[in-house]
Amino acid sequence: MRALVLGADGVALHNHRPNPTQEEGDVLVRVLRAGICETDLQLIRGYMGFRGVLGHEFVGVAQNGPLAGRRVVGEINCSCGACATCQSGLRTHCPERTVLGILRHDGAFADYVAVPARNLHPVPDSVSTDAAVFCEPLAAAFQIPAQVPIGRSDRVVVLGDGRLGNLCAQVLSRCTAHLLVAGKHPRKLAQLKRLGLHTCLATDLPADHAADIVVDCTGSSSGLPAALGLVRPRGTVVMKTTVAGEQTLALAPVIINEVTLVGSRCGPFRRALSALESNDVDVLSLISARFPLDAGVDALSHARTQPVLKVLLDVDAGD
Amino acid sequence: MRALVLGADGVALHNHRPNPTQEEGDVLVRVLRAGICETDLQLIRGYMGFRGVLGHEFVGVAQNGPLAGRRVVGEINCSCGACATCQSGLRTHCPERTVLGILRHDGAFADYVAVPARNLHPVPDSVSTDAAVFCEPLAAAFQIPAQVPIGRSDRVVVLGDGRLGNLCAQVLSRCTAHLLVAGKHPRKLAQLKRLGLHTCLATDLPADHAADIVVDCTGSSSGLPAALGLVRPRGTVVMKTTVAGEQTLALAPVIINEVTLVGSRCGPFRRALSALESNDVDVLSLISARFPLDAGVDALSHARTQPVLKVLLDVDAGD
Repeated sequence: MRALVLGADGVALHNHRPNPTQEEGDVLVRVLRAGICETDLQLIRGYMGFRGVLGHEFVGVAQNGPLAGRRVVGEINCSCGACATCQSGLRTHCPERTVLGILRHDGAFADYVAVPARNLHPVPDSVSTDAAVFCEPLAAAFQIPAQVPIGRSDRVVVLGDGRLGNLCAQVLSRCTAHLLVAGKHPRKLAQLKRLGLHTCLATDLPADHAADIVVDCTGSSSGLPAALGLVRPRGTVVMKTTVAGEQTLALAPVIINEVTLVGSRCGPFRRALSALESNDVDVLSLISARFPLDAGVDALSHARTQPVLKVLLDVDAGD
Repeated sequence: MRALVLGADGVALHNHRPNPTQEEGDVLVRVLRAGICETDLQLIRGYMGFRGVLGHEFVGVAQNGPLAGRRVVGEINCSCGACATCQSGLRTHCPERTVLGILRHDGAFADYVAVPARNLHPVPDSVSTDAAVFCEPLAAAFQIPAQVPIGRSDRVVVLGDGRLGNLCAQVLSRCTAHLLVAGKHPRKLAQLKRLGLHTCLATDLPADHAADIVVDCTGSSSGLPAALGLVRPRGTVVMKTTVAGEQTLALAPVIINEVTLVGSRCGPFRRALSALESNDVDVLSLISARFPLDAGVDALSHARTQPVLKVLLDVDAGD
């Protein structure tokens, strides 16, 4: 099969890679469409030391198992199901887990990907394949209200106007009447404004400690210090994007202002699929470009440019 | 009056400092006893840039106001009462606040200290002056269960066997049946063990991500990384001690493990006084040494040595 493989020398298209090995309980998924995420770009820069087939946002057709023949999306954490963490209900945090296209598990920038059957969700017929490819990052956005109670009158600031910031902003705009998205890219902010969201340039934000909740989607080491300047005493900062390596910052404001920081990662696929089904969220307008899998290396380069939002890979252009 | 004054050249005893100026609503308190806190030592090293009379843990006798003639303890945050933060109920976070002996407000290592009347609490007759001087740090310990729900079966680790770690451990041992205190000083740990607490050397702690809640009382930049190695996925780290300046650390584990970090500072005085009144907490065993105010400079030096816990200043030895 074809696959975009991250090796010691960077990413390359392999045209004759063997199909992925199916472990017990795995379903082979024929990939239709995949999305490029900031994490993919960080993996290429060395984050997590991953080697193998990239890609963890995808829609495909199950080739076996109870969903055989149906379009599916897949949760990315492949857990053992048996350890104390799994048994306590925290399967996404299984210490033995592999993660599709991120940690010891070949991903979906390929003709086929092997996914545990329990990770798969059928895509409702009314949800297009282009929309369904957003299920994984949209679920990550829905993880925020799943972790942090948000009231209608809460003042919420989303820092970052990129792929994830956009989805988080759309999700949170359904939770509060007082949402502000701050970013660096006028064109990306304009797009959010067209969806009816309040936006501003990050440089125009006053560090006035007035926000109840700040969500850091900047993917930058400057995000957390900025968030700590915006959040009110006893407010909450949701840390949504990882920054590889170490960063240097003053943490005294966290204690002095009794701020709560909440790390937030993967989220509920069912909630995301339900939002896509009811058109609660506009994901299609995030598609900036699409490339065939054969041009995957160019697609990854393009995803690094500005003001690009989501770049899709058409793996099977026929579907 | 006499006062221990932090100036550009360090701390010195002044024998003829004018009594503190009373603002409207202030009570003049004749100080009986005061306690030396880690924050005092940090202020001397330049934290907060404070200049003036040190000291924020004290017991005294109110000289005027509704509590005149009674022994009192005092909350340290002096807020405006009028701003949006105060009006929202977060008076300890008033942006206009002064803080006794810490921020633009002369403290209690002196014969007299001026304290807003609303900050004062009468000391119950059954609570000794030596015990009552622990009210402020004990209240800070009680702030933890006020911020974070703790169940009887929660595995809680307190990092740090110092003054604050000791009090936090004692308070939290009333919340959970599974408390472990980890520290660096065998003698301080032995003291906690005598109180019936489980202890271990910090170097013997496995970074096994098994604790539900970790409380960082180390006062060291190594505390937070250690806490992140101990806490389970979706667990909570309470950041109880400030580290001056910037520190360098990897924050990706916060997001990957979806950890919640909670900054925690001053706490409820009434709860602390009630615990002292019912002998719920053993504070007297923390007293390592006592010095007269005249030897205050020596007392501050002594508080820096190991394995010292609490050093008291006898300001008015007659009481």
